[in-house]
Amino acid sequence: MRFARVAVVGVGLIGGSFALALKAARLAGTVAGAGRGAANLKLALEQGVIDEIAADAAAAARDADLVLVAAPVAQFAAIFSAIAPVLKPGALVTDGGSTKRDVVAAARAALGAKVAQFVPAHPIAGAERSGASAASAELFQGRRVVLAPLAENAPATVEAVEQAWAACGARVSRMDAEAHDAVLAAVSHLPHLLAYALVHEVAGRGNAAELFGYAAGGFRDFTRIASSHPEMWRDICVANRDALLAELERYQAKLEALRPLVARGDGAALEKLFAEARSARNRWLAGEYE
Amino acid sequence: MRFARVAVVGVGLIGGSFALALKAARLAGTVAGAGRGAANLKLALEQGVIDEIAADAAAAARDADLVLVAAPVAQFAAIFSAIAPVLKPGALVTDGGSTKRDVVAAARAALGAKVAQFVPAHPIAGAERSGASAASAELFQGRRVVLAPLAENAPATVEAVEQAWAACGARVSRMDAEAHDAVLAAVSHLPHLLAYALVHEVAGRGNAAELFGYAAGGFRDFTRIASSHPEMWRDICVANRDALLAELERYQAKLEALRPLVARGDGAALEKLFAEARSARNRWLAGEYE
Repeated sequence: MRFARVAVVGVGLIGGSFALALKAARLAGTVAGAGRGAANLKLALEQGVIDEIAADAAAAARDADLVLVAAPVAQFAAIFSAIAPVLKPGALVTDGGSTKRDVVAAARAALGAKVAQFVPAHPIAGAERSGASAASAELFQGRRVVLAPLAENAPATVEAVEQAWAACGARVSRMDAEAHDAVLAAVSHLPHLLAYALVHEVAGRGNAAELFGYAAGGFRDFTRIASSHPEMWRDICVANRDALLAELERYQAKLEALRPLVARGDGAALEKLFAEARSARNRWLAGEYE
Repeated sequence: MRFARVAVVGVGLIGGSFALALKAARLAGTVAGAGRGAANLKLALEQGVIDEIAADAAAAARDADLVLVAAPVAQFAAIFSAIAPVLKPGALVTDGGSTKRDVVAAARAALGAKVAQFVPAHPIAGAERSGASAASAELFQGRRVVLAPLAENAPATVEAVEQAWAACGARVSRMDAEAHDAVLAAVSHLPHLLAYALVHEVAGRGNAAELFGYAAGGFRDFTRIASSHPEMWRDICVANRDALLAELERYQAKLEALRPLVARGDGAALEKLFAEARSARNRWLAGEYE
């Protein structure tokens, strides 16, 4: 058994799936879960996602060989502060946060020298479902996990955390925290904001019922991510606000450039743009950017 | 047999599926197909979507009891002009165009008194796939079809066309052309434009390969409709440009209102907006707006 005791702080979609995947890979002994929702933890225990409910993050982490922090990112500072005193030498810490610069800053501030034990990670495996009930041992199969190793990490520490994520089925790559946050702002955080904005706009209309009544498959898929967890996405937008703001402004400029094409009915320019976009998307789907 | 001869002008996803669904309902005798793509028509014939290839729209419509026009909407004026002289008394005409005011105007201009035989329709059953190979007898099952009847239509004419669409499995409702175009601009045409814009923006970056490399399920679903047919969507955007422009401007105003929330990291306001959007979307998914 690679990790006799695993602590999962935040037993939701990501935390619960990590626990299940490590167990399936026979890498985890006892998994202790901690979190804010008593009902969620009870469910996780009943469903065998975790083996023990810990009173809090510190209790979960006290004897752990591996700690995963998988709460909304605004809670990371408090969680790192709680686990810092109890973290045993040689224990590994990783996380499931969707932003990395803020998580790294919080870790450095709270963990002191023990920050060397923390290897930041972002499993790109979100879903609009949340909570332990959504957890699955298969969630990370073939999904990317970005590690953002710290200068303080020993190579062996990074490799051990990489192996844990790889054992969950993930394709692990490495990127620094700043690059990660810029990339994810463009391809994840902005689309979430845009989808929430469209649904909110439609829902606020006097004829919202009629509008939704004629919304179909295109609208459903475009807005799927607007069913995502509001607190989690609040934290992401706040934590990554400078990169997200830059992406939002670029997108606003894009729409402003598109507007006259629509206004004057410039079919040739619109078709060119649509064809280029479709071609790029289809190349992406074909795996050209893997 | 309700319609001994059916003409389908434009044997793509919509036209081909209409042919197959009418045959499955035993309402269609011989189906003649016309269109621009010889290879597509040959495939449609081989796959039993149509029974005959007609030389052109007029040849298809000459002896037809029911004509479906299902080409990109910019072609409707020419198609109506071609079929006007040959359309026999009592023949019904309907269409699959995604916009209705322009289609109605084209029909009135080309069909003269025969416009009474034309009942405009929009089957809300698009997909990013196109062509006869994407056709399916099941496409319209449970999908909405909007009829936009004309003042010139006799009630029996509208009912006969309604029955044809209902026989394909569709839930048929009625709306005037102007209301239709306004509603669809909000829940279909704008999302397509937004998805195309996002993919085009990402594809145009110097680091597009890296960005696409980390794009995941949320991006895939948000942009699914950016794999839609460029010519078809060019025509829709041009035909419905005033309603689409109004929606685009409202959405731009929405983003402009969101921008300061992101810029100052206003978590409470963002969470409220996200929660309201999620709640509305989940009510929609639960069928509250059916």
